[in-house]
Amino acid sequence: MSAPLPGRVHPAGPVAPVAPDHVALHPGAATVITGGFWAERRRVNALVGIPQGPELLEAAGNLHNLALAAGTAEGEYRGDLPFLDTDVTKWLEAAAWHLGGAGAEELPELPGQIARLVALLAAAQEESGYLNSWFQVTRPGERFTDLRWGHELYCAGHLIQAAVALHRSTGDTGLLAVAIRFADHIDAVFGPGKPIDGVCGHAEIETALVELYRETWERRYLDLAQYFVDRRGHGLLNTGADHGTAPGPAYCQDRVPLREAETVEGHAVRQLYLLAGATDLVMETGEPELRAAVERLWTAMTTAKTHLTGGLGARHEWEDFGDPYELPSDRTYCETCAAVASVHWNWRMALLTGEAKYSDLTERTLYNGFLAGVSLDGEKWLYVNPLQVRDGYQDSDGDQTSRRTRWFRCACCPPNVMRLLASLPHYMASTDREGLQLHQYTTGRVEAELPAGKVAVETATAYPWEGRITVTVATAPADRAWTLSLRIPHWSTAACFVSVNNEPVEPVVQDGWLRLTRDWAADDQVVLELDMAARLTGADPRVDAVRGSVAVERGPLVYCLEQVDHPGGGLDDVVIDTRAPLAAEHRPDLLGGVTTVTAGGARLDPASGTGSWWPYAPTNGSAPVGGTPLVLTAVPYYAWANRADGSMRVWVPTR
Amino acid sequence: MSAPLPGRVHPAGPVAPVAPDHVALHPGAATVITGGFWAERRRVNALVGIPQGPELLEAAGNLHNLALAAGTAEGEYRGDLPFLDTDVTKWLEAAAWHLGGAGAEELPELPGQIARLVALLAAAQEESGYLNSWFQVTRPGERFTDLRWGHELYCAGHLIQAAVALHRSTGDTGLLAVAIRFADHIDAVFGPGKPIDGVCGHAEIETALVELYRETWERRYLDLAQYFVDRRGHGLLNTGADHGTAPGPAYCQDRVPLREAETVEGHAVRQLYLLAGATDLVMETGEPELRAAVERLWTAMTTAKTHLTGGLGARHEWEDFGDPYELPSDRTYCETCAAVASVHWNWRMALLTGEAKYSDLTERTLYNGFLAGVSLDGEKWLYVNPLQVRDGYQDSDGDQTSRRTRWFRCACCPPNVMRLLASLPHYMASTDREGLQLHQYTTGRVEAELPAGKVAVETATAYPWEGRITVTVATAPADRAWTLSLRIPHWSTAACFVSVNNEPVEPVVQDGWLRLTRDWAADDQVVLELDMAARLTGADPRVDAVRGSVAVERGPLVYCLEQVDHPGGGLDDVVIDTRAPLAAEHRPDLLGGVTTVTAGGARLDPASGTGSWWPYAPTNGSAPVGGTPLVLTAVPYYAWANRADGSMRVWVPTR
Repeated sequence: MSAPLPGRVHPAGPVAPVAPDHVALHPGAATVITGGFWAERRRVNALVGIPQGPELLEAAGNLHNLALAAGTAEGEYRGDLPFLDTDVTKWLEAAAWHLGGAGAEELPELPGQIARLVALLAAAQEESGYLNSWFQVTRPGERFTDLRWGHELYCAGHLIQAAVALHRSTGDTGLLAVAIRFADHIDAVFGPGKPIDGVCGHAEIETALVELYRETWERRYLDLAQYFVDRRGHGLLNTGADHGTAPGPAYCQDRVPLREAETVEGHAVRQLYLLAGATDLVMETGEPELRAAVERLWTAMTTAKTHLTGGLGARHEWEDFGDPYELPSDRTYCETCAAVASVHWNWRMALLTGEAKYSDLTERTLYNGFLAGVSLDGEKWLYVNPLQVRDGYQDSDGDQTSRRTRWFRCACCPPNVMRLLASLPHYMASTDREGLQLHQYTTGRVEAELPAGKVAVETATAYPWEGRITVTVATAPADRAWTLSLRIPHWSTAACFVSVNNEPVEPVVQDGWLRLTRDWAADDQVVLELDMAARLTGADPRVDAVRGSVAVERGPLVYCLEQVDHPGGGLDDVVIDTRAPLAAEHRPDLLGGVTTVTAGGARLDPASGTGSWWPYAPTNGSAPVGGTPLVLTAVPYYAWANRADGSMRVWVPTR
Repeated sequence: MSAPLPGRVHPAGPVAPVAPDHVALHPGAATVITGGFWAERRRVNALVGIPQGPELLEAAGNLHNLALAAGTAEGEYRGDLPFLDTDVTKWLEAAAWHLGGAGAEELPELPGQIARLVALLAAAQEESGYLNSWFQVTRPGERFTDLRWGHELYCAGHLIQAAVALHRSTGDTGLLAVAIRFADHIDAVFGPGKPIDGVCGHAEIETALVELYRETWERRYLDLAQYFVDRRGHGLLNTGADHGTAPGPAYCQDRVPLREAETVEGHAVRQLYLLAGATDLVMETGEPELRAAVERLWTAMTTAKTHLTGGLGARHEWEDFGDPYELPSDRTYCETCAAVASVHWNWRMALLTGEAKYSDLTERTLYNGFLAGVSLDGEKWLYVNPLQVRDGYQDSDGDQTSRRTRWFRCACCPPNVMRLLASLPHYMASTDREGLQLHQYTTGRVEAELPAGKVAVETATAYPWEGRITVTVATAPADRAWTLSLRIPHWSTAACFVSVNNEPVEPVVQDGWLRLTRDWAADDQVVLELDMAARLTGADPRVDAVRGSVAVERGPLVYCLEQVDHPGGGLDDVVIDTRAPLAAEHRPDLLGGVTTVTAGGARLDPASGTGSWWPYAPTNGSAPVGGTPLVLTAVPYYAWANRADGSMRVWVPTR
């Protein structure tokens, strides 16, 4: 999944970038990240994450499996999942986005690696256009007979996304040709009056087809995406039969048509990919009913099914969203892929509506729920992202462990992290008829072609450690007013300071945007100061799991306690004193350089329990008292699990 | 699983009941329940639960499958689980216990039904002694090749338990002969120097073999049980390979040898059945190391892994115990079978040690976590027993739904409930050299042969609604002192009143027992008054899931709020006022006659949340205020889900 609408480019040549009228914002701003927080994370992704791909894909058997399908290798199919090809195509997408951005020259071998994998996919593709190594090698007669579990259209979607990325980044049409052949095959097989009336158990093809439409201007792909979105929720996947041990229809997003859904449900990643695809569709069609549905579902999700970190999916079982306000810290799922999918969906919602809240959630997700998924050194991963690891944690969850892992049997998350970091500049800025919008803050440059003319701004910031963001106009049309819009995060709307050319400006924030309209000139400078005071955050009282607890936050960062910083005991019986001051300190030596927050607290004596074999006892409702005073040191959540194994918690009891 | 040590009866004739010296208490007290709470539950079990068995087993295909194995039917095997035979044998065990108790004459057709199923099992048994319809019909060449998932020894265990029950109850040796042939076959195949060195993925054979030893006096069965207990935890089940999606070795109780284990872990029912078997073994062998292990694991379980209801197993995923203090209300598992297994294990621990705390937990489990598993009318079931159902609960859990179900695809729980209710008198009383111990209180009669001579007592009580228990001596040896011991539940140790023949007695409670030693005479009467004041209970602060919440309890009963009693809104935003008085009222009209407890409280306004799309907001740590006053009406947890579907909660926030 890539940034939508970067411009419409027909294989025969570019078409002028036109966004439909009902889309509020356009992604037509070219952003380069040159320094600061995200530049460092992207550097690790470029130098460690992406380069390890081909080797790991070779070792895990993915490339061997494609070679089997191509008839150029012999042996057994390796692995027993039908979607192993997507590890390859998602890595290709990551590599493609990287190749199209700044710093590509640091990986001179990348074009060759890409070409080799593209050739492998092309060789594996059948004459018909069909491509799925698992079915081709292990189930040759069964293609499209198990839409519920087969993942064939899901795999096709990721192939298409990779092809779009490669074409958009480099103009290379090699993989695009493979994708088009597969898409045409699918279009010949699926749809009204065609051999199969069905949808895929795992959404992904929907957003991919809209992107392919944007890339090729071929209306059939948009229509096919519309068909797949419309046909969901009508029981086509027949998931009722073995409901006892298999998940129900919600898992496959087939319980209810999207336009009738009242909340997000079922498998979180499938739900989010579907919503991204549906939003893509609305961006193209403007259909009010579907637009109302995606807006309604977003609110249902954020108010009752989203963790403080932006993490989504409350249950390990069936990777499910869970019930409203079911947001456990310890056993939540918060799959890294769900965070990636959330960013994809929120970006589309931001463009569709122009509302800042979607990029608020994107920021929160990027800095917390998403970034925790990869280690600081770029070499180890988390599939799930809990907000608490208990003192007695038993590591028995396989891929779903709370300990970092070198690679997974089901390796969906690592290449998803790679492709999001590689495409991160896509989510930074947008344009509309009036001007330029900055959604995220980093050090770099944004260029865009506005109706008023060509504009460019340079941004500089030590965000998220410091709240000052400097935006300097580099290029502006003469004698034309345009609007520079800065997103003010919701945690800072009550206190932020703005100046233009050193003159304070009244910070009028409307719906999350600070809009500055001027006849801008080169070297004009805007300085924004966001409120970076560390703060304690509480939850809606319906979130039972964190009642009587607070979390430390600072800027866009959620903090956590790690056992390694609190020797002498565990974290299960630590409490925080909400009256004690919070102190922030930047520690360049720690975890690659982080600002820590210290707080006052205590470690309760185990005797604050009942002291017997039975942990429940009569109470008058008052909280336990006593304990040994303890300075609590909180570190950014994204940086957890990079030191010694131990317990961790985001939410800390107040008593 | 049945009550151990009821007497040693060799097939050739009874052997005098002898318990090893290191067993503190003996089960040799014959108890009849004639009235009151449990008599009513057992009446429903006898008139509704047990009679529906043959019909449901016929409808579900279990009997057909056995007929396939016997070669007397044709067609496809029905169901895809390897342990469907246990639905039959567990029902047989229930029927057998019922047949041996009071009230058997109410089911005149029962002996014939039992005989038919015994004949079916005998016909299905192979010449070798092997018996498992699933492997015989669908995997003829694969027996004992998949010990991890095959459940063959588990099935054998339940067959043996049923045979022991039938023989103990009626003297019928038909099923016992089948069980002995199967046990001899297993003994020929498994063990040191025999064809297979292995254990079963699902424990059950261990306790069954000890029981068969007690029934037959055949030492080989005890040795084989010892072998199965000893060989666990040595990786024989080879569960590491597909750790990614399959559970790890803890699931199959194969992670660590039992004598080295520090806590209960993995699949709760497997763990508990294994512990029951190991305790059976210690009761026979007296081995100190294994005894220390089962005592240590019991404490680890109760202090950190047991719900207020006695429910066990915190996770839906892999039906796992979860980490210490991971005790969620909404997504806990608390399988009905785990409650049954807990009663089995605790009874063995009570007999082994003589300590009252084990029967404390049995009582709590029986009245709460166990009894909630069956509807008041005996016709519908719960597989899992959550302590909270949210307002937005989505019923998508199949067998694991929080709504009552007529029968399950995996129907392990219903016959487990039937056999426990049918055998309930086993857990009421015990003897030792000094006298008679009453573990549970009901209306009925207990008879026992003490060294001092034959004794009998009549008990009468309206427990658990009222705290008065009257024990009248019916038979006592002349001029011989003996001790009548009454268990004082831990919630009542601080306040109970005792009189003997209307003379108050100082209630000296030692380790949970009130011991009254006298030269008792017929018509002597003891009256015990337990403290039935409704109370608020809090949890150890490490139980994050219920922080800032209390539960209502009264006597042995845990209470809950149900939405049906609180119209005008849901229960997600209800709070309790811990300063308001609690009021108990007996309501003969409600839920078959229950005592309700009302409390003061309020329903918070939704605006006590953040009122925005983001449910987290800055806080000073104080709890929300306001709300609409609301009288909270709590009903016994066991009786929940017998009226309209809706939300439910045991733990209620104090603010």
